[in-house]
Amino acid sequence: MENTLNSAEGRQDSLPPANSGSPPHNYLGFVLVHAGAGYHSESKAKEYKHVCKRACQKAVDRLKAGAQAVEAVTAALIELEDSPFTNAGMGSNLNLLGEIECDASIMDGKTLHYGAVGALSGIKNPVLVARTLLSEAQKGKLSAGRIPPCFLVGKGAQQWAESHGIPPCPSEKMATKFSMSAYKRNKRKMELAEKVETERCQVKRGRHSNDSDLGSLGEVKGMVADEEENHSACLDTVGVIVVDQEGNVAAAVSSGGLAMKHPGRVGQAALFGCGCWAQNSCNANPYSTAVSTSGCGEHLMRTMLARECSSALQAEDAHQALLETMQNKFISSSFLAGEDCVLGGVIVLRCCRCVETSPDIQELLVEFLWSHTTESMCVGYMSAQDSKAKTHISRLPPGAVAGQSLAIEGGVCRLGSKSD
Amino acid sequence: MENTLNSAEGRQDSLPPANSGSPPHNYLGFVLVHAGAGYHSESKAKEYKHVCKRACQKAVDRLKAGAQAVEAVTAALIELEDSPFTNAGMGSNLNLLGEIECDASIMDGKTLHYGAVGALSGIKNPVLVARTLLSEAQKGKLSAGRIPPCFLVGKGAQQWAESHGIPPCPSEKMATKFSMSAYKRNKRKMELAEKVETERCQVKRGRHSNDSDLGSLGEVKGMVADEEENHSACLDTVGVIVVDQEGNVAAAVSSGGLAMKHPGRVGQAALFGCGCWAQNSCNANPYSTAVSTSGCGEHLMRTMLARECSSALQAEDAHQALLETMQNKFISSSFLAGEDCVLGGVIVLRCCRCVETSPDIQELLVEFLWSHTTESMCVGYMSAQDSKAKTHISRLPPGAVAGQSLAIEGGVCRLGSKSD
Repeated sequence: MENTLNSAEGRQDSLPPANSGSPPHNYLGFVLVHAGAGYHSESKAKEYKHVCKRACQKAVDRLKAGAQAVEAVTAALIELEDSPFTNAGMGSNLNLLGEIECDASIMDGKTLHYGAVGALSGIKNPVLVARTLLSEAQKGKLSAGRIPPCFLVGKGAQQWAESHGIPPCPSEKMATKFSMSAYKRNKRKMELAEKVETERCQVKRGRHSNDSDLGSLGEVKGMVADEEENHSACLDTVGVIVVDQEGNVAAAVSSGGLAMKHPGRVGQAALFGCGCWAQNSCNANPYSTAVSTSGCGEHLMRTMLARECSSALQAEDAHQALLETMQNKFISSSFLAGEDCVLGGVIVLRCCRCVETSPDIQELLVEFLWSHTTESMCVGYMSAQDSKAKTHISRLPPGAVAGQSLAIEGGVCRLGSKSD
Repeated sequence: MENTLNSAEGRQDSLPPANSGSPPHNYLGFVLVHAGAGYHSESKAKEYKHVCKRACQKAVDRLKAGAQAVEAVTAALIELEDSPFTNAGMGSNLNLLGEIECDASIMDGKTLHYGAVGALSGIKNPVLVARTLLSEAQKGKLSAGRIPPCFLVGKGAQQWAESHGIPPCPSEKMATKFSMSAYKRNKRKMELAEKVETERCQVKRGRHSNDSDLGSLGEVKGMVADEEENHSACLDTVGVIVVDQEGNVAAAVSSGGLAMKHPGRVGQAALFGCGCWAQNSCNANPYSTAVSTSGCGEHLMRTMLARECSSALQAEDAHQALLETMQNKFISSSFLAGEDCVLGGVIVLRCCRCVETSPDIQELLVEFLWSHTTESMCVGYMSAQDSKAKTHISRLPPGAVAGQSLAIEGGVCRLGSKSD
């Protein structure tokens, strides 16, 4: 368990609790958001923190208005999607053909219903389609006993969205100056890399053999390596987890996917168990849990990281459970044997009712954490009792290697309500 | 555990073992296939058994030629897809617009790699695309360090397939007389059901109130009910699980999805953990396991049935473990609370090396089972030592209610090889 040493903060209570010590109020609810595990330069940090703050506020506004967790999660996620800086909705990464195709999913911990879209184009807020799939499925069967879909992709998803009142949005409005310039940069990088590959083959076949040819190969390689340094910036999937007034949890995630992905590629953000998870407490599980993931979709998918984290969080020590899950079920997962760089991050929360201090006061204890193997991860959190959100860019400790080490941090929060 | 009583056969060894008592040969390997959990009329039974037999033979031919499990699984699945009687590849159910959109996935228990396609049109054998995605991903990164996709959908999946040498197939060649007539029947059923709904609303609003109007409503209702009786025939996803000469396992599944599904709807056959699962034994798991599912995609997806079965099969008693999983994690799953009819089926196998009887003989013990909550399930199985496949239509016991009860059956098989 060497990576314990790489933990950016030793204990989950190393950050100030969201509202410890404050007396219980009548408003219950807590939100934790992320604007992606990846690499956040100091110059971009301010923008990311801003959007996380706004997203938290949206969720809390809904919670204060009496909305359930699913509504609050959706409101916060729309705010994150609408930011041109995140890789979700507006400003998403472009695929190989220069198109935007988004993945998103949402899960309701109360009903355990789930809605998801994959490779969806032409819709400003993919999470809204996932949310609508979820609520339509909860209404029961369609005509002639047909089972309503919970996962739609591509053109069919777009048509379904429009027929359910979600307006289309032209692709050119969803691409940003930033995403277009990233596309051009990535395209050049690919061309360079393919040039290197071609030259390498030619050298192998003996068609070129003098020093100058090998020199040119080395030069191109260097350019590719430089470009690759900036690559991890492109993982900024967004996600939200919420616990509401009644102690229900919900989770959601939304992503433009990997830059330069093949058209039709679907990542973890659309996949059940991989992108997000929410499950209220029940007989078998003492804690309600909610999880949202970010990072390399294929790694998160094949390790089913959201569901693994949720299961682990039923253990006594949440911090230790998440640390071990990130280490054993992600970085060292047998599902990713052969991968020397496993990139991802999660936000998690779990909550349970506290022993009542007096008959008319109920308290929820919320423990929340984030962990990532990427250079950095931007998070924000807020309880309905707080006046504003706290935001934070978590970074790997100096010297730690991204994809092989992890950071883990978090806090606790007590939510109170007087029963009438 | 009342459903134990509904078990069609009381014990897993109720069917003749595939080759018990025969001496170990030099050929190892075993295949179990299904042509769907649904409803198989006596008239269709013969065709289904035939295709299962041919599929088993294809896998065994490959195993005898020294192929690994993944190759054998693919060969058998292609045979099942090519049958016009199954709901996969050729002859798939048509969607709301009368188009064919297929889901398929494959998993290699040795490398734990997975490949999948969803809502794929215009390709004769969707499993071949899943198989190619899997093998391409195993080659490592793409140019410029890009991570290869493991899950592609829609048009993008079709383009990827064609660029990887898989020829297109015009949709009109994939539809059959049977699938076209089912589409027309289903369309009429939907129109009738919608008529009933409209009439019901009009009655409620008081626009109609005399007896004759109510009579017409009743008549239409009856027609819908009659039509619904035939509906469960439309679940015939196909699947294959294999253990090869070296004890590697692999699993695959392929489906045309629910009849009259919304375009773009993706079901369990494409989803990691839901459609199929294969995992070689390792330190933590004494058994290699392989699973393939069939039935209502949304139910199989939200219960992640393939992965649940695989985990359960590490318990001592495979039959009991599968029975409890089908009962507690499927029929009575908290993920399907509110569903009164949970339709699905699985084929599973697990294997482990036997204690050596003599230094030059190795034996693999393979336990195989199938279980379903649908009216019936058609299976076939064969070891590489058998001269021909055994096939069987498993049915719920008389009086058992589909969607609420289950059948479970299976057998054991010893595979031997002389080391040189």
